[in-house]
Amino acid sequence: MPATIGTFLNPHPARDYDIEHKVHEFTSLCPMTAQPDFATITIRYVPGPTCIELKSLKLYLQSFRSKGIFYEDVTNVILKDLVAACHPKWMAVEARWSVRGGIQSVITVEHGDRNLLS
Amino acid sequence: MPATIGTFLNPHPARDYDIEHKVHEFTSLCPMTAQPDFATITIRYVPGPTCIELKSLKLYLQSFRSKGIFYEDVTNVILKDLVAACHPKWMAVEARWSVRGGIQSVITVEHGDRNLLS
Amino acid sequence: MPATIGTFLNPHPARDYDIEHKVHEFTSLCPMTAQPDFATITIRYVPGPTCIELKSLKLYLQSFRSKGIFYEDVTNVILKDLVAACHPKWMAVEARWSVRGGIQSVITVEHGDRNLLS
Amino acid sequence: MPATIGTFLNPHPARDYDIEHKVHEFTSLCPMTAQPDFATITIRYVPGPTCIELKSLKLYLQSFRSKGIFYEDVTNVILKDLVAACHPKWMAVEARWSVRGGIQSVITVEHGDRNLLS
Amino acid sequence: MPATIGTFLNPHPARDYDIEHKVHEFTSLCPMTAQPDFATITIRYVPGPTCIELKSLKLYLQSFRSKGIFYEDVTNVILKDLVAACHPKWMAVEARWSVRGGIQSVITVEHGDRNLLS
Amino acid sequence: MPATIGTFLNPHPARDYDIEHKVHEFTSLCPMTAQPDFATITIRYVPGPTCIELKSLKLYLQSFRSKGIFYEDVTNVILKDLVAACHPKWMAVEARWSVRGGIQSVITVEHGDRNLLS
Amino acid sequence: MPATIGTFLNPHPARDYDIEHKVHEFTSLCPMTAQPDFATITIRYVPGPTCIELKSLKLYLQSFRSKGIFYEDVTNVILKDLVAACHPKWMAVEARWSVRGGIQSVITVEHGDRNLLS
Amino acid sequence: MPATIGTFLNPHPARDYDIEHKVHEFTSLCPMTAQPDFATITIRYVPGPTCIELKSLKLYLQSFRSKGIFYEDVTNVILKDLVAACHPKWMAVEARWSVRGGIQSVITVEHGDRNLLS
Amino acid sequence: MPATIGTFLNPHPARDYDIEHKVHEFTSLCPMTAQPDFATITIRYVPGPTCIELKSLKLYLQSFRSKGIFYEDVTNVILKDLVAACHPKWMAVEARWSVRGGIQSVITVEHGDRNLLS
Amino acid sequence: MPATIGTFLNPHPARDYDIEHKVHEFTSLCPMTAQPDFATITIRYVPGPTCIELKSLKLYLQSFRSKGIFYEDVTNVILKDLVAACHPKWMAVEARWSVRGGIQSVITVEHGDRNLLS
Repeated sequence: MPATIGTFLNPHPARDYDIEHKVHEFTSLCPMTAQPDFATITIRYVPGPTCIELKSLKLYLQSFRSKGIFYEDVTNVILKDLVAACHPKWMAVEARWSVRGGIQSVITVEHGDRNLLS
Repeated sequence: MPATIGTFLNPHPARDYDIEHKVHEFTSLCPMTAQPDFATITIRYVPGPTCIELKSLKLYLQSFRSKGIFYEDVTNVILKDLVAACHPKWMAVEARWSVRGGIQSVITVEHGDRNLLS
Repeated sequence: MPATIGTFLNPHPARDYDIEHKVHEFTSLCPMTAQPDFATITIRYVPGPTCIELKSLKLYLQSFRSKGIFYEDVTNVILKDLVAACHPKWMAVEARWSVRGGIQSVITVEHGDRNLLS
Repeated sequence: MPATIGTFLNPHPARDYDIEHKVHEFTSLCPMTAQPDFATITIRYVPGPTCIELKSLKLYLQSFRSKGIFYEDVTNVILKDLVAACHPKWMAVEARWSVRGGIQSVITVEHGDRNLLS
Repeated sequence: MPATIGTFLNPHPARDYDIEHKVHEFTSLCPMTAQPDFATITIRYVPGPTCIELKSLKLYLQSFRSKGIFYEDVTNVILKDLVAACHPKWMAVEARWSVRGGIQSVITVEHGDRNLLS
Repeated sequence: MPATIGTFLNPHPARDYDIEHKVHEFTSLCPMTAQPDFATITIRYVPGPTCIELKSLKLYLQSFRSKGIFYEDVTNVILKDLVAACHPKWMAVEARWSVRGGIQSVITVEHGDRNLLS
Repeated sequence: MPATIGTFLNPHPARDYDIEHKVHEFTSLCPMTAQPDFATITIRYVPGPTCIELKSLKLYLQSFRSKGIFYEDVTNVILKDLVAACHPKWMAVEARWSVRGGIQSVITVEHGDRNLLS
Repeated sequence: MPATIGTFLNPHPARDYDIEHKVHEFTSLCPMTAQPDFATITIRYVPGPTCIELKSLKLYLQSFRSKGIFYEDVTNVILKDLVAACHPKWMAVEARWSVRGGIQSVITVEHGDRNLLS
Repeated sequence: MPATIGTFLNPHPARDYDIEHKVHEFTSLCPMTAQPDFATITIRYVPGPTCIELKSLKLYLQSFRSKGIFYEDVTNVILKDLVAACHPKWMAVEARWSVRGGIQSVITVEHGDRNLLS
Repeated sequence: MPATIGTFLNPHPARDYDIEHKVHEFTSLCPMTAQPDFATITIRYVPGPTCIELKSLKLYLQSFRSKGIFYEDVTNVILKDLVAACHPKWMAVEARWSVRGGIQSVITVEHGDRNLLS
């Protein structure tokens, strides 16, 4: 079960604005081979009532360190967990993985439509 | 109380044009730990009746050096103070923070809609 | 006859999201001179019912190693084979070739329209 | 009084096309302190009946070397002088200034609307 | 008289796709001073019935080596010759010239409208 | 206890030559806080009777994933283990760590003197 | 009076090896104008009996935040304080300052001679 | 059996000078898995009586395309073959391999001592 | 007659250490054509009894703005003037000029021998 | 017969100093195929009684535009001609050629020994 994602009250809720957190140090395990995978995770969102607290975000992402999970799956799971925690007006999660077998993969998942906001 | 933001008359008010000021040397304090934070602040705007005077902008941004304030808050406060000082037709403020706990954060706040101008 | 392109069930079929695989190590032969050609192949797609399995993708692309085929042709063939294998909602294939005679070529082919998806 | 900006007949007036001249060596004086300022000036335009002749452009821009003038003003003045000289269908002038007091400034001014042309 | 630009049948005429050829080694002469000019020429097009053959493209571009011709003119001439040779659905030619007198110039010419194609 | 480091016979033992392995995906734990640390490990050596086998090197370095150990210590330990495994004529290990508290650290340890070899 | 620089016992005192700490977030004040200065400080050393503890190094460097001190002086003072704290076999301190008046300055000070060590 | 490496007479044998050929497109096979390996090969030498002819060098390096051979071995073999073909006063061969299992390897082999030449 | 170069007492005269000032905004005139020249000037020195004061250095270098002087000459003159002003133990001046006629020039002049100092 | 290389009196003959001219726009012909070759030529020297005049250097290098000559040969010829023209205390010529058949070549030739000068 993942660590709890903490939040704090959005200090300027009247305005739509953008927050980006880029995490260079994500690692999980391949569910087939149990070999470690490494990625840079970029989270972009327009906050709703609350913002994501950074220390709990770090601990939440560390909770994947010993977990076996596929590229496509983990990116969707992170988006779903963060949306449930902070109810953003819009959010996107990008996972950029290290080269494996000469192939570099990037998965990008989005919640809501940035263009529909002001 | 922040330093006063000086302005001067827009020398070409009949035309909508863009001004960008990038400040690599912004620093404030974390309100939780009192540890220093560092950021590059980028201000972009279409001037209205007045333009921002550069030396007073530098002193205004230096006024945060001993202030404890969160990432999301300070970016909104700078936008609000600059809008109040120079009444731009449009303005955006981006704060790009140093890495903390392996996470790099960027906050972007906007006043008005650039696309509605000519 | 090319190697079979394996797939697995899209773990989050309810949402449209983007997958990118960049392959730096593609090589085929020039059909005129039999000299080796080298390219970086980038595949981007929005999965439909299935996703492309990475190991079989690697083997599929290696099947061109001893094949004589033109730049324009091979890019279209890869798109067609991948579309047939995984039925994506949208897909694009870009082939960026090494310099030949002082000329660097890039071929980009697309299936469907990314902007029509959510 | 600035040097004259020479022009020559647009060799292909039937088609709208883009011309860009990037000048890395612009220098003027600060009107407050008489200290030298340095900028890279980028001129982009769709020519009308005439094109700007390069040698006269160089001499025109050199005419600011001993002139005291503000960032915002000089960018607008260059646009106005060039528009008067060659009557372009569209033109934009960008001035990217050296760091002063830890602040890097960019001013961008536009004449006409590029999107309205074919 | 320029060298002949060879073509071959578009192997996938049913689909609109993009081809780019970047040529780093273009050189012609200044018609005023007879001094050599150097440029990187980038050709992008959506093929119609035929594609441009690379070796003949190289020889065609070499035919300017001893020719005196202005920046704006040569870019338009190359576009016109290539359009006549291969009847593309869309084509753009960009010429990026070496620095002369501290000024770097780029000329971009387009045939048709890329956005009107699928 | 670390995984075994495999070796194979140096195929050209009569000549002194250099081998470098750069591992971008090293991670261990901070012994004080149990927080993950990340580093790029570069191993350079002149082989003696044997060379390091790559797959076992990967598994050996993965054995630190759940181990609490200081920067200075782990770099020395890796050097010691590798020297014991393959008896190189010379070896250097460099560990380049991710930013922590605004500080980026690099530790470099050497066995033998490269300049004394031919 | 500066914060205390903590140390810990060198875990591998029998071998001469190199430690580098790069601190991107140093700031002090100009003693003439009281304006903030910003620098990247790089510390390289061969440890003697003890190594520098990173958290106390961070706090020590933060103690200059409100201090007025010249470029040349502060670099020498940091070297002197660090040498007194950990008695290294060799140490070098480099301070790379932000641009002031169009001038970028770097001060480098050394204790002992790296080449005399093994 | 490899292709023959052609040579031509050194046009300036009285002077020691340096020649470097960097080949970005080398590929061979892993002798264990038969999977393709990719490398950039850099050859540097001071010519003796003859120089290496470029077209035959290209064909010689292509002869490894279907050969199973280890990193350390192939670098030594290339050096040996080239030395036998052109009898250089000094030669070095560097092979820089693509990432495999998160590890990037570089092998460097040398014949003679560059510093002993004038 | 050039502006006076100010100095201040070396705060740590007992130790040999290095100071570098890089000035991106140098401009003088070509003595043949009166056209402006632009350069980046880098000054490196080991201070003797005094250090160069930065504001006076900036004004001294600005004094060449309207002076006609050759590349090779101005670099030597700057070295001579700075040596006379501050009596360094060692000094080097590098002038890196903008491209003229497709040629980029760098002049480097040295006073004393850095290697003879400790 | 090549153009004459002009010189002017070394303005500071009492001191050994370094001059570098980097020419990005060199082109000659392949003597086998008559195809154009392109190179960046870098000339470094310590002047003797005279310095090389830049405009005549440009014209001298342009005299190879229609000449068929091998890589190794042209680099030596340029060194020989420049040494004969200006009698430097030391000179090196480097020619860095465009990619041909996937191979990038660099030839470096030296006259005298830089380390023997002060």
